[in-house]
Amino acid sequence: MSERETMSTQSINPRTGQAFGPIFAETNAAEIASLIEKAQVGFELWSTATVAQRVEALQGIADALDANIADLVEIADLETGLGVPRLTGEVGRTTFQIREFARAISEGRFISPEVDPFVDAPLPVGHPEFIRTLAPLGVVVVFGANNFPFAFSVLGGDTASALAAGCAVIAKAHPSHPQTSTKVFSLAKSVLETLGFPGVLSLIHGVDAGVTVLQSPVVSAGAFTGSKKGGRALFDIAQSRPTPIPFYGELGSVNPVVALSSGISDPKAFATAYLDSLLLGNGQFCTNPSILFVPENSPVLNEIESQISERKPSPFLSLATKTLHDENRARLSHLLSSPVIAGQELSDGGFYSSPAVLVTDLAKVTAKPETLEVECFGPTGLVVTYSNIAQLILAIANLEGALSASIFAAASDGDVVTVCSALSRKVGRLSWNAWPTGVAVTIGQQHGGPYPASTSLLHTSVGLHAITRFLRPVALQNFPAEVASKLI
Amino acid sequence: MSERETMSTQSINPRTGQAFGPIFAETNAAEIASLIEKAQVGFELWSTATVAQRVEALQGIADALDANIADLVEIADLETGLGVPRLTGEVGRTTFQIREFARAISEGRFISPEVDPFVDAPLPVGHPEFIRTLAPLGVVVVFGANNFPFAFSVLGGDTASALAAGCAVIAKAHPSHPQTSTKVFSLAKSVLETLGFPGVLSLIHGVDAGVTVLQSPVVSAGAFTGSKKGGRALFDIAQSRPTPIPFYGELGSVNPVVALSSGISDPKAFATAYLDSLLLGNGQFCTNPSILFVPENSPVLNEIESQISERKPSPFLSLATKTLHDENRARLSHLLSSPVIAGQELSDGGFYSSPAVLVTDLAKVTAKPETLEVECFGPTGLVVTYSNIAQLILAIANLEGALSASIFAAASDGDVVTVCSALSRKVGRLSWNAWPTGVAVTIGQQHGGPYPASTSLLHTSVGLHAITRFLRPVALQNFPAEVASKLI
Repeated sequence: MSERETMSTQSINPRTGQAFGPIFAETNAAEIASLIEKAQVGFELWSTATVAQRVEALQGIADALDANIADLVEIADLETGLGVPRLTGEVGRTTFQIREFARAISEGRFISPEVDPFVDAPLPVGHPEFIRTLAPLGVVVVFGANNFPFAFSVLGGDTASALAAGCAVIAKAHPSHPQTSTKVFSLAKSVLETLGFPGVLSLIHGVDAGVTVLQSPVVSAGAFTGSKKGGRALFDIAQSRPTPIPFYGELGSVNPVVALSSGISDPKAFATAYLDSLLLGNGQFCTNPSILFVPENSPVLNEIESQISERKPSPFLSLATKTLHDENRARLSHLLSSPVIAGQELSDGGFYSSPAVLVTDLAKVTAKPETLEVECFGPTGLVVTYSNIAQLILAIANLEGALSASIFAAASDGDVVTVCSALSRKVGRLSWNAWPTGVAVTIGQQHGGPYPASTSLLHTSVGLHAITRFLRPVALQNFPAEVASKLI
Repeated sequence: MSERETMSTQSINPRTGQAFGPIFAETNAAEIASLIEKAQVGFELWSTATVAQRVEALQGIADALDANIADLVEIADLETGLGVPRLTGEVGRTTFQIREFARAISEGRFISPEVDPFVDAPLPVGHPEFIRTLAPLGVVVVFGANNFPFAFSVLGGDTASALAAGCAVIAKAHPSHPQTSTKVFSLAKSVLETLGFPGVLSLIHGVDAGVTVLQSPVVSAGAFTGSKKGGRALFDIAQSRPTPIPFYGELGSVNPVVALSSGISDPKAFATAYLDSLLLGNGQFCTNPSILFVPENSPVLNEIESQISERKPSPFLSLATKTLHDENRARLSHLLSSPVIAGQELSDGGFYSSPAVLVTDLAKVTAKPETLEVECFGPTGLVVTYSNIAQLILAIANLEGALSASIFAAASDGDVVTVCSALSRKVGRLSWNAWPTGVAVTIGQQHGGPYPASTSLLHTSVGLHAITRFLRPVALQNFPAEVASKLI
């Protein structure tokens, strides 16, 4: 999620709606020019540093975050309302992924040159020796996300993977957690400067500042996690530059979950697990189970409707997030002529809406395909009943790209392969009898999918493969070993 | 190179300027709609075929081209004027690379799933099993190049790598060799249809047809080799679609070659090798040594000026190519106030210009940096003298991105590392004491570089890694083996 900020930003406690703490001015043109120059120098230092130096710095940053976890979580909770347990876990995930990238490069993973030896033969078989090296792209701009103040923000996966690759990073703070961003940045900056790497990481505030940096000829790539509208605007800027650059945008995702009747053995438990996933973090996850397809007349329906009434609201990240969610929910309800089946309400000064589901059937969403592209980013789920697998497959084929899909079924179910094949065309990750929320940070992860889930469906923003986004091959042809060794 | 064609195309013999053979109409809207539908079905068949079936088909296509080499070379020579020896070699290279992609997938290279086993531990370390599979993107449109009627055309590297990945291909014939394109296409189509894979490969004619296909929601990626202007226009179309798609464009390249004084032991032989590389295929190579930097007062200069006078012209691929070359040469000569030092002329009805060099110094090109971005695609080289390595490094830092750079030097030369580092920032391939023309088809190759050399600098269009452009990861989370095995 991203929203248009004004020329200055102040933290707002989403539980009360009250502003607090320092006012952050938008980074101005002179400051941007200065930090871009420093980032260029920082890139020279960092890209020519040894792998051991980069590993030491990354581990130092992770250690600094862990050492300050209580302070970090306290301010992040005030700014985001996500709660101490979740935020504590998120810091752990963030430092884990920084250390995992450090470990990967220390093992030479992804960055080791590939030697293709000289072949003494006639063309086209014969060729000189090639050493295929991987070079960092340069200075990268990272747009922090609203919903993960640590794991997808200033020192989140995009920054960690770019730094591991040898790139310098200019991070744009998300306006809904400027104090958390500043604190995380200060800790990392201090580690980097102490180790002799000034300029490797910078922080900016403001949408216009982000756009200015993205347009700089010095900048070689961009990474973004947020809304379809904001992300597409930035993607368009990156692609229409005189020199277009890679832009790794995650632009929102309407994630399908399909339950076959063979996959629902305990309707009550199934409904509970669904609502737990739907309402986790107030539904503000890009992997939220946005649309649940269930067989018509499934007892799950009654369970969901009855259980939702017990669920309590949690705060939204910001007023803008709440407003957008409420508008999308009303729009969906209107388009489908489906009532909002709401849970409990909370009326005070904070940013709350009741959790809710909308129930409809396949014919209705098929008649209005745009309803399958409305992302209610927040605590609202769409439940679609189906009576016919062939029609379900057709509906899946017409879905937009998404990050994640799930199927609930028995392995022996005859429809499993067809449904899975259809789903796999649409997503980067397909889960078996598992809800989509909770994205493991591991080598096999794929967090990215067909547009709009990602603007770069060949890549992932979570897991070690994320580093490949910031490396480009450079082949050294026919080099004497003594020279090649000084270039790698 | 690409040029705007009219609504119909006929072959023109560049040695005589005479049109010959059948007239090819631009593929019309109804034909495009029909072939896109067939390509969709073709993709379903092809992407679900076994690897062994794909390997058999690719090998069958390579065999069919080899079996018809004499006919293919004869018509290509009439259409391109590139000569029988070069074209014979090019068919060999083309079938070699088709077989290499077949071999790669038969060995599971690039396409094998990566298994990331279940880890039983608390978060963030613990995670379910992931099987990271690689799925073909879908239907791909390939825009054939002017200058390689086989290796970068209908069945060139883009098509071969896309087919190996499991994609269906719609190939746009280049208007300067429509008969060669049609013949190659027919051979491949027949092999594919015989093996039960209709619709996997289609051929279209005309720029508008290419644009229409690129805009189709069915199409998942584009590949292009040609001019900066045409390539950028197509790139912009691909990126501004409602659903942007990967576009692998090679848009032209001004390739720098740096000779340090330690790298020129025999000025006469050096000049000969330079002119051989510059004039190979009438200079119509994307890896042509466009700019040669030599020490001031080097005896190489006299050698080049004297030897160029002996060199004979070869035909251009088309009148448009010749016209563009002549305009760029005149512009460069005007901007630099440097005379065109020309070789021999040939006045008849064909598309010829004299081979030539322009000699200038570093101060002049530094004063007019746009001169370093003029690609004289054809038999014209720019020779720039330098007196100071620091100034040379600055000039290199201001170059546009290129496919390839070369350095000629002794390994013991103290300036080698600095110059190589500067060059490597600008290119995808850096060669040691070797001219840039002649691109080996091998795993270590990198044919691609910073924009405008490539619109996708993370990828190569030559060598086995080219297949990765057409595959996207799909992670299967927590799947029972019996289901996963049916999905992979």
